[in-house]
Amino acid sequence: MAALSPPDSVGLVTPQTLHFDEPLALDCGQTLADYEIVYETYGALNADHSNAVLICHALSGDHHVAGYHDEADLNKPGWWDNCIGPGKPIDTREFFVVCCNNLGGCKGSTGPTSINPDNRKPYGPDFPIVTVKDWVHSQARLADQLGVRQWAAVIGGSLGGMQAMQWAITFPERVRHVLAIAAAPRLSAQNIAFNEVARQAILSDPDFHHGHYYDFGVVPRRGLMIARMLGHITYLSEEGMRAKFGRELREGRPNFNFDTEFEVESYLRHQGKAFVDRFDANTYLLMTKTLDYFDPAADFDQDLSAAFHRAQAQFLVVSFTSDWRFSPARSREIVRALVRAGREVSYAEIPSDYGHDAFLMPIPLYHDTLRGYLMRVAHEVNPDAP
Amino acid sequence: MAALSPPDSVGLVTPQTLHFDEPLALDCGQTLADYEIVYETYGALNADHSNAVLICHALSGDHHVAGYHDEADLNKPGWWDNCIGPGKPIDTREFFVVCCNNLGGCKGSTGPTSINPDNRKPYGPDFPIVTVKDWVHSQARLADQLGVRQWAAVIGGSLGGMQAMQWAITFPERVRHVLAIAAAPRLSAQNIAFNEVARQAILSDPDFHHGHYYDFGVVPRRGLMIARMLGHITYLSEEGMRAKFGRELREGRPNFNFDTEFEVESYLRHQGKAFVDRFDANTYLLMTKTLDYFDPAADFDQDLSAAFHRAQAQFLVVSFTSDWRFSPARSREIVRALVRAGREVSYAEIPSDYGHDAFLMPIPLYHDTLRGYLMRVAHEVNPDAP
Repeated sequence: MAALSPPDSVGLVTPQTLHFDEPLALDCGQTLADYEIVYETYGALNADHSNAVLICHALSGDHHVAGYHDEADLNKPGWWDNCIGPGKPIDTREFFVVCCNNLGGCKGSTGPTSINPDNRKPYGPDFPIVTVKDWVHSQARLADQLGVRQWAAVIGGSLGGMQAMQWAITFPERVRHVLAIAAAPRLSAQNIAFNEVARQAILSDPDFHHGHYYDFGVVPRRGLMIARMLGHITYLSEEGMRAKFGRELREGRPNFNFDTEFEVESYLRHQGKAFVDRFDANTYLLMTKTLDYFDPAADFDQDLSAAFHRAQAQFLVVSFTSDWRFSPARSREIVRALVRAGREVSYAEIPSDYGHDAFLMPIPLYHDTLRGYLMRVAHEVNPDAP
Repeated sequence: MAALSPPDSVGLVTPQTLHFDEPLALDCGQTLADYEIVYETYGALNADHSNAVLICHALSGDHHVAGYHDEADLNKPGWWDNCIGPGKPIDTREFFVVCCNNLGGCKGSTGPTSINPDNRKPYGPDFPIVTVKDWVHSQARLADQLGVRQWAAVIGGSLGGMQAMQWAITFPERVRHVLAIAAAPRLSAQNIAFNEVARQAILSDPDFHHGHYYDFGVVPRRGLMIARMLGHITYLSEEGMRAKFGRELREGRPNFNFDTEFEVESYLRHQGKAFVDRFDANTYLLMTKTLDYFDPAADFDQDLSAAFHRAQAQFLVVSFTSDWRFSPARSREIVRALVRAGREVSYAEIPSDYGHDAFLMPIPLYHDTLRGYLMRVAHEVNPDAP
């Protein structure tokens, strides 16, 4: 534990990398001959390896979910640091927490920016489009390496929640609890439409060069910025935007030109620009397709309930009132299918103005809900847990 | 009346153009020395000039609101032909209907594509950003030329509804009825955010050339296409998209690449491409700013009711249940302000899955509502009307 980090932090953490040389057959029909997965762990695996928890990241997340990479930069903790640590809802005194960067990512696991062994150049657009099922298979191999036969829980928000659900369907005997937060059973036509506009912004950027922009020493900045700005609108609620920005003009009065004028414009441009510096456009494209394709019911005659029928896990489903990307109605679809499948499921709809982003926020009722549920999970693992 | 057009059509129509050489002082501080307005009229102005109705167009509309420009092309009537004609809700046997292309447009009225007399080149980005108030002033001069001292009604949907409301505020004695359909008292932060992403898509297109693309023989196709695709998502409802497209794959199964795959993608790309061929990017930018700036309450200490207090018109406010661009809640804000201002106001919330686009659709309950209201207006004009 780092001396300077807060007492409820997992402190300084170091990513680790595992190389897998058993080929991985993907949904798309292609095979990855070998690949690397970067991951972090917090807490300790207990003697019977029964206290492991997998965190699955969403569209632009990565393996760095809690703690710090650098003591000098305590302002940049992992993306879900408010929820993971000693005494936090996902309590590292009880659980061995694992999070990996998914295949196709751009933060260390094999993806479009990695070198393609066939031609010694970055994969770029030749990296295969991976699915949530592919991710679950690759995460299962990581679990094997870590000595985790069965997860106490698989937890994720948004696209992460989809992975958590897929775990229970693909590997019923390897998951005791699924926490699916702000997720959906599959994307709606509107969800796909937003993804498609984001993709077109990137694909039509002259600096995209059919995905081979690495060879040209450029990145499709404009397209990726537009894509991220658009994404942000769908992450926030209308109420939240109104409360945060209203119609405030940065200079108090209209300037009648196309400079940044309203506060909300300034925020979106800043978010878009910052994202370009930390994320790869090919990975962004790929992740949006992974979202579009997620549809566990498709393998079961469009019957989501039949998909869940094979699951053995217990479920906690959480949604947020102002989330219009994956609204509470979508979570209730999941709950209905689980109930019809005879699964044990708890459902919590959390009042919030934060929109879809709420799943990352330290909302007291939300964190108490996770804490209460996971306290039960901890007791199953260790009856002496507090 | 054209022989081949349907009996309830206004038939073949020909746009007319008026030149105005009295300078027009604009909200932005600039002055248009002279300008042209293109317009169409249907029906006949009665002897006491009391039966004139003004239709105000929305973001991408124009003056061609009913009938046909070419008998050979009866598939392309005006944009609100289903509502305007003999026996239709806006009945041209009773009313003299006027619609003009707004200043800043790209369909014949003076705008960015017009020649700037100062340098004999297209205005492009030098065309001043006009406001809804500017439009109302220019429409008032058109009314003067047509001999219309007072409109029986000013009618518009979306941005058109904003113009209709502004008419009642700016020229209280010149409007007897306002029909504000699918409108809002001003844009929300989310509305502005969507406009801003659309603008950034255009502004960042390398073919935009700071708005001087005419000089380069190109148009910012990619940016304008992205902008229109995004717009379309906000015009449709989630329910409507689900009913129309669902998650249907064009080829029945995923192709694991970035070609058009889902039906909704194909629809959006088609809409985006078609728009580029018929609309000017500078006009699109300008119209989105006109929307952002509309805020009649701003002149009255943020009290919309005070703005309406000076109005003398009677109002019909119409909204559509699935419209999330300008939702029923926004129309109810207008109604509340009108009631508090002591104005006569009727409000109709029409059940529909068409989203914002509903205002253009021949929904029976909607058209019956317009018909019933306008029948009363017709009777005020002519007690012998049917």
